[in-house]
Parts: sequence; structure tokens; C-alpha cells
Amino acid sequence: MNHKMCPVGVSNRHLHIAQEDLEKLFGPGATLTKFKDLSQTGQFACDETISLVSCKGQLDKVRILGPVRKETQVEVTVTDSFKLGIMVPIRESGNIDQTPGIKLIGPKGSIDLEKGVIIASRHIHMSPKDAENFGVKNGDIVSVKSEGPRSVIFNNVVIRVREDFVLDLHIDTDEANAAFIKTGDMLEVIR
Amino acid sequence: MNHKMCPVGVSNRHLHIAQEDLEKLFGPGATLTKFKDLSQTGQFACDETISLVSCKGQLDKVRILGPVRKETQVEVTVTDSFKLGIMVPIRESGNIDQTPGIKLIGPKGSIDLEKGVIIASRHIHMSPKDAENFGVKNGDIVSVKSEGPRSVIFNNVVIRVREDFVLDLHIDTDEANAAFIKTGDMLEVIR
Repeated sequence: MNHKMCPVGVSNRHLHIAQEDLEKLFGPGATLTKFKDLSQTGQFACDETISLVSCKGQLDKVRILGPVRKETQVEVTVTDSFKLGIMVPIRESGNIDQTPGIKLIGPKGSIDLEKGVIIASRHIHMSPKDAENFGVKNGDIVSVKSEGPRSVIFNNVVIRVREDFVLDLHIDTDEANAAFIKTGDMLEVIR
Repeated sequence: MNHKMCPVGVSNRHLHIAQEDLEKLFGPGATLTKFKDLSQTGQFACDETISLVSCKGQLDKVRILGPVRKETQVEVTVTDSFKLGIMVPIRESGNIDQTPGIKLIGPKGSIDLEKGVIIASRHIHMSPKDAENFGVKNGDIVSVKSEGPRSVIFNNVVIRVREDFVLDLHIDTDEANAAFIKTGDMLEVIR
């Protein structure tokens, strides 16, 4: 049997930001400063962080991921949603219609975001060549298995294929901690 | 096909405490005060809470579960272990040899616990009659499946059978949040 393995990338809470919102939080003409490159080509973690504030809770030092996007999108975990006291839906990145908003506080200003808070669906980034190797296509749903004392099978993992994508399974800290796995671990794609 | 369903009980971080340690933290002659009954017969959450302190972090309002036990045992999540900066093994309750210690701080004193910090293995409590219905015996390992957008299969779930046990799958907040499930949800035992 041919085991198809995929590396894991664990995401902590973060946000993608529109240029207009970046300037409201960090001042006119603000730009993002690269802290480190991420697995996907051209994506990077930034030095810039902000606070998320709801009527019930606050999360500080939430990192912005660059480059700037068309719309601001905040990605939190289920654990975070309890701290913030807001109901957050599980969504694919970019699909932010009818999602809750939140207050963002930066060093130079704040924004009452009207929508854009999501819990990201787990997904695998891959190139067309990877997709061929795995026998899958863009939009397919697969399962992924972790080994060890907390072995789990994650169902409903979405395949996302693009020419510039680098093979990586994106899960959040709740999912990683439940399975006792970390960034760089190799998991088996089982269907 | 006969679906065997089991209710979920989600555990947050907590501790079980020995009488001697209870008195060091809450004063001579201290006893536990019931806050609410838990699913297992005779077990209860207490009004009493303490703080867990490591060299790297602190967790406050950690609830004691009663009644008192022979040995003090602290159960945290993987998420907690990162906050505390300590490597905590996954163990069955009661198996605390060669586990890390931690400082406990109560209203009347503190203890440098030498061992007893664990991440609890997920497990299902059941009566002998339940075990017969499920076709399993004490110590068996099964898998449990959750449905929904974050459907997961938890492998390595230990069956614990005792006359006074009440059917309940015990998982922690990391596991519940990864699967987007909560106390009282019904999950399928799949083998």
C-alpha cells in the first residue's frame, strides 16, 4: 500500500488585513513588515500585531499575516471564540458573508469590523503535480490520520490546488493539541 | 447496522486532591464544598479553586474535583502545557509515576508538588451492562466518531468498566474544540 504523507502546518489565531484597515490601525501609509516567511509562496507573518476585543473578552498580540488582502479576515480557534463569547462559524478562507464582526485595536487606532471573523476549515494546499500524486482534485474532501497516543482521523479536509501552492495541511492549535501533533509532523492522507 | 452511541463529557483543567494537600492549601481541617455533581456517581466539582504556577506561566481558578483521593493529580490540556512551559505526558488517571510536578497556590498556603501533572487519556466510563451492549470489556481500545463540519474519529479511546460507572466519554477542551462538540453531544462508538 502506498502511504500518501503530508506535512502539517499549525495556525494560531491571526488576521489578514486590507490596506485601508491597516492604515486605520497603524497610521496613514502603513505597510507590513515581514517577520518570517510562511510555507505558502509569498505569504509571511508580520511584526505587526493587534488586539481583538469583544464585549466579553480580549485577545492581545494577534499577528497579521501578509501580504495585504482585499478584505480583512480574522481567523480564531473554537477556544478563542469561547474567550471572546461570540459564535463563530467554520468557513473556508475568503467566505466571510454573514460572519460576526469584532473590534480591532492597533497602536494608532481602532476599527469596529462588521464581519470577517471565522474559524478556518482544515485544508491541504497542494500543487497540480501533488494533486496528481495523491489522486485528488481541487475541492475534493479527504481524511487525514495522525498516529501516536492521541491518534485521530480528521474528516472533511478540503483539497486546495493551485500552481504556486506548497504541500501543507493547515490545522489550528485546537486541532493540533487534540491530536498532540506539531508543525512539520507528517500525516497520512487516507482517502 | 446498529449504531452504538455514547454521550460526551468535556473536562476542563482540574485537580484531584489528597486530604493532606487540601489542608496545606486551605488550612487545617479544610474540607471540600460541593459546587455541582458530575456524571460519575459520587464525583463532584467543588467551590474550591487553586492556581497552578510554573516558572513560565500561571493558570488561575483551577477547580478541585471531589471527593479527596489518596494522591493529588493535576489534569491539564496540551494547550495548558504550552502556557505552563512544561512537557506533560498523556496518561490514564492514577498513573502518575515519572510525571512532572508544579506549584499549587491556595488561599492559605502553597505546595511544590513533586509529580502528578498529566494530560488525561480519553476514555469511556461504562457499567458492565453497557459493556455487554457495546460488546467490549474493561481495557479495550475503541474509536469514536463525531459528525459535523469538523468530523473527527478519535482513536485510542480506553474502555473503563465498573459497576457504578455511568456511560460517558471523557475528552478535554482541546479535543472538544477540535471536533466542535460539547458536553451532552452523542458520538458513535465505531469499533
